[in-house]
Amino acid sequence: MEKVRLGIIGLGAQGGAYAGFIAEGRVPNMAIGAICDIDPEKKALAQEKYPDVPFYDNYIDMLESGDVDAVVTCVPHYLHPEMGIESLKRDVHALVEKPAGVYTKQVKELNEFAATKPELTFGIMFNQRTNKLYQKVKEVIDNGEIGNIRRTNWIITTWWRPQGYYDQSAWRATWEGEGGGVLVNQAPHQLDLLQWIAGMPKKVYSNVKYGYQRDIAVEDEVTALLDYGNGATGTFITCTHDIMGTDRFEIHGDKGKIVVDDSETVTIKRLKTPESEMSATMDMQDVMRIFMGAGPGEIYDEEVLKFESVWGEQHTSVMENFAANILEGTPLLAPGSDGINGVALANAIHLSSWLGKEVELPVDEDEYFAALTKKIEEEKKSPIQK
Amino acid sequence: MEKVRLGIIGLGAQGGAYAGFIAEGRVPNMAIGAICDIDPEKKALAQEKYPDVPFYDNYIDMLESGDVDAVVTCVPHYLHPEMGIESLKRDVHALVEKPAGVYTKQVKELNEFAATKPELTFGIMFNQRTNKLYQKVKEVIDNGEIGNIRRTNWIITTWWRPQGYYDQSAWRATWEGEGGGVLVNQAPHQLDLLQWIAGMPKKVYSNVKYGYQRDIAVEDEVTALLDYGNGATGTFITCTHDIMGTDRFEIHGDKGKIVVDDSETVTIKRLKTPESEMSATMDMQDVMRIFMGAGPGEIYDEEVLKFESVWGEQHTSVMENFAANILEGTPLLAPGSDGINGVALANAIHLSSWLGKEVELPVDEDEYFAALTKKIEEEKKSPIQK
Repeated sequence: MEKVRLGIIGLGAQGGAYAGFIAEGRVPNMAIGAICDIDPEKKALAQEKYPDVPFYDNYIDMLESGDVDAVVTCVPHYLHPEMGIESLKRDVHALVEKPAGVYTKQVKELNEFAATKPELTFGIMFNQRTNKLYQKVKEVIDNGEIGNIRRTNWIITTWWRPQGYYDQSAWRATWEGEGGGVLVNQAPHQLDLLQWIAGMPKKVYSNVKYGYQRDIAVEDEVTALLDYGNGATGTFITCTHDIMGTDRFEIHGDKGKIVVDDSETVTIKRLKTPESEMSATMDMQDVMRIFMGAGPGEIYDEEVLKFESVWGEQHTSVMENFAANILEGTPLLAPGSDGINGVALANAIHLSSWLGKEVELPVDEDEYFAALTKKIEEEKKSPIQK
Repeated sequence: MEKVRLGIIGLGAQGGAYAGFIAEGRVPNMAIGAICDIDPEKKALAQEKYPDVPFYDNYIDMLESGDVDAVVTCVPHYLHPEMGIESLKRDVHALVEKPAGVYTKQVKELNEFAATKPELTFGIMFNQRTNKLYQKVKEVIDNGEIGNIRRTNWIITTWWRPQGYYDQSAWRATWEGEGGGVLVNQAPHQLDLLQWIAGMPKKVYSNVKYGYQRDIAVEDEVTALLDYGNGATGTFITCTHDIMGTDRFEIHGDKGKIVVDDSETVTIKRLKTPESEMSATMDMQDVMRIFMGAGPGEIYDEEVLKFESVWGEQHTSVMENFAANILEGTPLLAPGSDGINGVALANAIHLSSWLGKEVELPVDEDEYFAALTKKIEEEKKSPIQK
């Protein structure tokens, strides 16, 4: 087997883009094995664009056809775990779209099933993990270059969506259709990067606004306060109503600081002496001398790095890495089992706001599922007029 | 009366600086009327530096001497309200140092007494209010140039203090001596500016670390989540253990955004059309066109302003304005009665962390006072070994 034959489930915006990347040869170790969609219009589209590629209107049929070695699940979030399980069950490798699911209860089932099939490749489309910028940030942290983390603050409000976006389909931004708003649809990348880079918090308190600036049932504004359990704290702020959105991620460690601006520029300051040692040995006169005289350059080195990104490159990198894992055992950048962390964070942020108190992670999966089910029932009784 | 004769209570770092400013003629409408300190060494210092200025070791004697028209209270925080009241009682104008006090119960007494003496001038040393940068920010907000506020986020961690700072005196950073840490000693300026510019939040939740990176009883790390009660939210983050501290204040409104970096640079973005209107009229194609093509300049104008500050200028401006109010009725930049807001915020942040839940503002002043008293008692039983 030279190329992995990928079955694309769902020929919407994402699925269509992935098919295009493969067709254009941007994923050298992949071929389009088959395409599946329940929409007859998509069938016509697929047959026009990819006349030689088999088409299925039922993904189980595709899984059992022998046409595909692997699938990618470009379908509504709720379906990712189920489709992942059905694929792996039939010895078809699975690349699930983000988020891994809507609630941890279902994602756990996926992970547990995947664990019984260690010979198969199970990945998740965390394309931001292939971003050289965030790889660098993770490397600096993992190497201990800024020491132990004391604080993480991420304002990521560049997810502007107009009301028209939400009005495109009835299922959008509903509890039943998506299971959440910005936390489930737009911010999963940052929730994953945050935990990938800085680890999972132990406790979360949140203030979440549902339908604050948009006529939707789910959240369009999130402020979460994180506690890492070792003294370190954090904030995570996101929304879909800031058309001049901010993307600023600050990580404060006991030996340095990293600031990422606009996912483009990384400023790394490395202290020459750990902060705790400076605290123990310096008096206020030294402080005055540094801040008013010698200048802070005396105490740290600063490195500024700029990164450029090419649209689509991140997705093709995940696809290529996923296929390379199947073909050659190359380590996965984004193992599917990692997907649960971002979902656990999103669930904790929702639950804290519903309970009005700080919650411990992981939150009780049955409690969250029950609360979500209640939201869905309430929504059915009085749907939002979009 | 051409000049206000100021009585300086406490010849420490602040009191000494104020005496110097007046002696150097930097406050043209003020003269040093008298100096008071309980420390004999300070008496020697005063007599050496200001041989013609009367010295008192009891501030009540100074108030009753006829030597002073007004006083400034450069003494531990707990004493500000009491000294303010005693001065006003004797028809001596009062300029209290920040914070106005440690707990709102005492500050309220001061405000209530001051209200019975409307003919006297009652000011507070919120020198940052004379900072042209923050005046500009307030003006832009007050003029509605960025519309209604949706979010405020301030990371102000430039208050680095080494352990040696805390070890200078036994009363420092204790509940009995100061009644708090960074919230009471360093950050009152920003707490005041925040409420001056953006209004008081209605609810506060906080995660506060006491003695996190320093051997102290009080807080050296604060993360507070603010809820303004109208949908708007905020975060306020401060600490004393970040030697490469951040000072970044972002205000997001429905017609624009203000970002203040390092209390030096203000970036103001004004939308050409209010965000809610853009949301109502734009579809995702328009969004793609703007963000990937025409550029965001199509939707907003950006103004970047730089401000320089001269050390001491802010303090002399408050002093001059205070004296001008006495002499000519010039409106006060920082009326003393405003001091309670920052104290109320600090109290709410403390109380939320002690109760582990969100609190409504203003917090119950008796509940806060009882909780603070308990901290003082606990501290007496097991003092921190500094």
